[in-house]
Amino acid sequence: MVMAKKISEAERQRDVVEKSLKQLGNLIYDQINEGEFPWIMMQSRSIDNIQYDDTVRQYILGDRMIKRHSRNIKHIRPFTQLVWTAWFARELVKLRKTSTLREVYYSARGQRDIEYNDQKESDNIITDLEVALNKAREEFGIFPEERSAIFGDLTIEYTVPGYEGRRTNLTDHPDGVMVGPAVTSSEFIETTANKILVIEKGAMFTRLVEEQAHKKFNAILVHTAGQSPRSTRNIIHRLNKMWGMPVYIFTDGDPWGVHIAMVIVSGSANAAHLRGLTTPDAKWIGVWASDIINYKLPTENLTEFDKKRLTELQSDPRYKEDPWNREIETFIKLQKKAELEAFSLYGLTYIVDKYLPEKLNEN
Amino acid sequence: MVMAKKISEAERQRDVVEKSLKQLGNLIYDQINEGEFPWIMMQSRSIDNIQYDDTVRQYILGDRMIKRHSRNIKHIRPFTQLVWTAWFARELVKLRKTSTLREVYYSARGQRDIEYNDQKESDNIITDLEVALNKAREEFGIFPEERSAIFGDLTIEYTVPGYEGRRTNLTDHPDGVMVGPAVTSSEFIETTANKILVIEKGAMFTRLVEEQAHKKFNAILVHTAGQSPRSTRNIIHRLNKMWGMPVYIFTDGDPWGVHIAMVIVSGSANAAHLRGLTTPDAKWIGVWASDIINYKLPTENLTEFDKKRLTELQSDPRYKEDPWNREIETFIKLQKKAELEAFSLYGLTYIVDKYLPEKLNEN
Repeated sequence: MVMAKKISEAERQRDVVEKSLKQLGNLIYDQINEGEFPWIMMQSRSIDNIQYDDTVRQYILGDRMIKRHSRNIKHIRPFTQLVWTAWFARELVKLRKTSTLREVYYSARGQRDIEYNDQKESDNIITDLEVALNKAREEFGIFPEERSAIFGDLTIEYTVPGYEGRRTNLTDHPDGVMVGPAVTSSEFIETTANKILVIEKGAMFTRLVEEQAHKKFNAILVHTAGQSPRSTRNIIHRLNKMWGMPVYIFTDGDPWGVHIAMVIVSGSANAAHLRGLTTPDAKWIGVWASDIINYKLPTENLTEFDKKRLTELQSDPRYKEDPWNREIETFIKLQKKAELEAFSLYGLTYIVDKYLPEKLNEN
Repeated sequence: MVMAKKISEAERQRDVVEKSLKQLGNLIYDQINEGEFPWIMMQSRSIDNIQYDDTVRQYILGDRMIKRHSRNIKHIRPFTQLVWTAWFARELVKLRKTSTLREVYYSARGQRDIEYNDQKESDNIITDLEVALNKAREEFGIFPEERSAIFGDLTIEYTVPGYEGRRTNLTDHPDGVMVGPAVTSSEFIETTANKILVIEKGAMFTRLVEEQAHKKFNAILVHTAGQSPRSTRNIIHRLNKMWGMPVYIFTDGDPWGVHIAMVIVSGSANAAHLRGLTTPDAKWIGVWASDIINYKLPTENLTEFDKKRLTELQSDPRYKEDPWNREIETFIKLQKKAELEAFSLYGLTYIVDKYLPEKLNEN
């Protein structure tokens, strides 16, 4: 998901995507004109073709390719679905519209010869199209439904129809600015911030906005709303790359929080075919298991589900180094977890006055 | 939840809440000074004291009162919790801060003599305080974590610290404006809209924003994000009352959507002690069970859980009239449900070009 640097750049990007889609269509036409059963070649997404790459510091697809061939009776269904999805994507790009995964699924059901058993099958074909084009679906206008938010001194310029060239500063709205298609596709113009604080929880995001944490820490605040949507990961990636801003991630002190942080750092296996979603130098700086001890936080017991998850994380090579490994071991030793809100124990402003400054100093 | 009309009005409201809290404190001091065990009197919230009122067209609390008495060993715990919560609320009002239900729970855990088994116990005491003061918790700064959104030609003026007197128009941000404490406490200044469209789902909200439904229908678009948070219901109530704007509600075509609409219309039994959250003349105009037939929508089968819910709704007096009763019966007859996104079957703009105009004309 490479986003544009200027309006003309945004237009250029749309052209590139539209061209890729046309090429795909032309390829199929050519095959048919030459009397061939059409086929599409793409990297395999099967688990044995996904590997962690130390150089780019994320999961990537290996070299194994698959050919989806309309001559093969088993392939006809996904082949047709893929071609239809590519047509739909082109419509979106041409009309400068966006859509959601769910809408694409229902739109397909309106077509006589396109059939899906469920949305999962449709989502899967959209991922195939990403692989075939080497582009993220957001680039051809397909967004998820999750909503996250952003706040701080960052001036952006919209590129969506009707708002082209219009600028806004992300402190203008004191509840924070929702991250939808418009923010995702906007240009970043200027900022006085020198770091990014990423927060998993809405309540803590609102707390930081209210305590003016963006001024105190000279930071852009990003709220992921749980597992970060890809568009929000791309925004973090861009801010980090464009201005070299360090990224600090705060999550709940539990295995799910650990993984939310890791996905921002190094991505997920599901997005092994994409670039521009990871921030390898981003730091997870809390809530650590050791914070539970150091800050005497109120805790809950780990559930069986939490414990199982911790064991899974231990077998993932990305968690071999500290603080990841150390903190996972500490969670297992303590058998406890703590939420971000647990700091309210020491008053509402403790997290801004004490915890965050200490954590930012140490890391 | 009565919100202010002008800045001075917003200040006056804060004074009123602070005064109520002080009165509560003084009452307890006086009782102690007179050598009495302190007590607090409030309306009972038990189920047999909640009744539907045809005049105000919402659930209300009956006349039965309860006395929470520190002389009674069983009452000491909730009495102490209530007094602490009132103190905490006063701090919030005094400092012009907001907090969340979850933060209040953790804050209490930081106090030596305040004990809660879980957040539910804390939430319950906050509701007691609402009843005792006859004020919604949003007025003393305690918000939920849910996020909904709003979009359209409405100019608001903020009253939160640092933004006092600052105005913004809700079309300024093309992803829609998040409803947090700042929007909730803002003044509504002016609008050219003449109706309100309430939408349950984020994807459909984004679709309507993108299709400029606010211009086409001269409407303010409100996204409830599922069951509408109280602050969002209050915004709908205020818009309806202030400018006499009719309210049209669009939900998924299933028993959960039906209930989301009804809660906007007449509130919930849980909020029987509050006013200003309902819009009795709001109309639920889709997705109806009969729309499934009339528009030949793709459907899913009702689950056992859905069927049970429909039976529950049938026994609720508020659903006795049409379209509620008729549509519930149709759902049961069809044994099917349909989502808002199902209209994508006919193309992305069908809902704006065809369905909404027809529905708005009929209703």
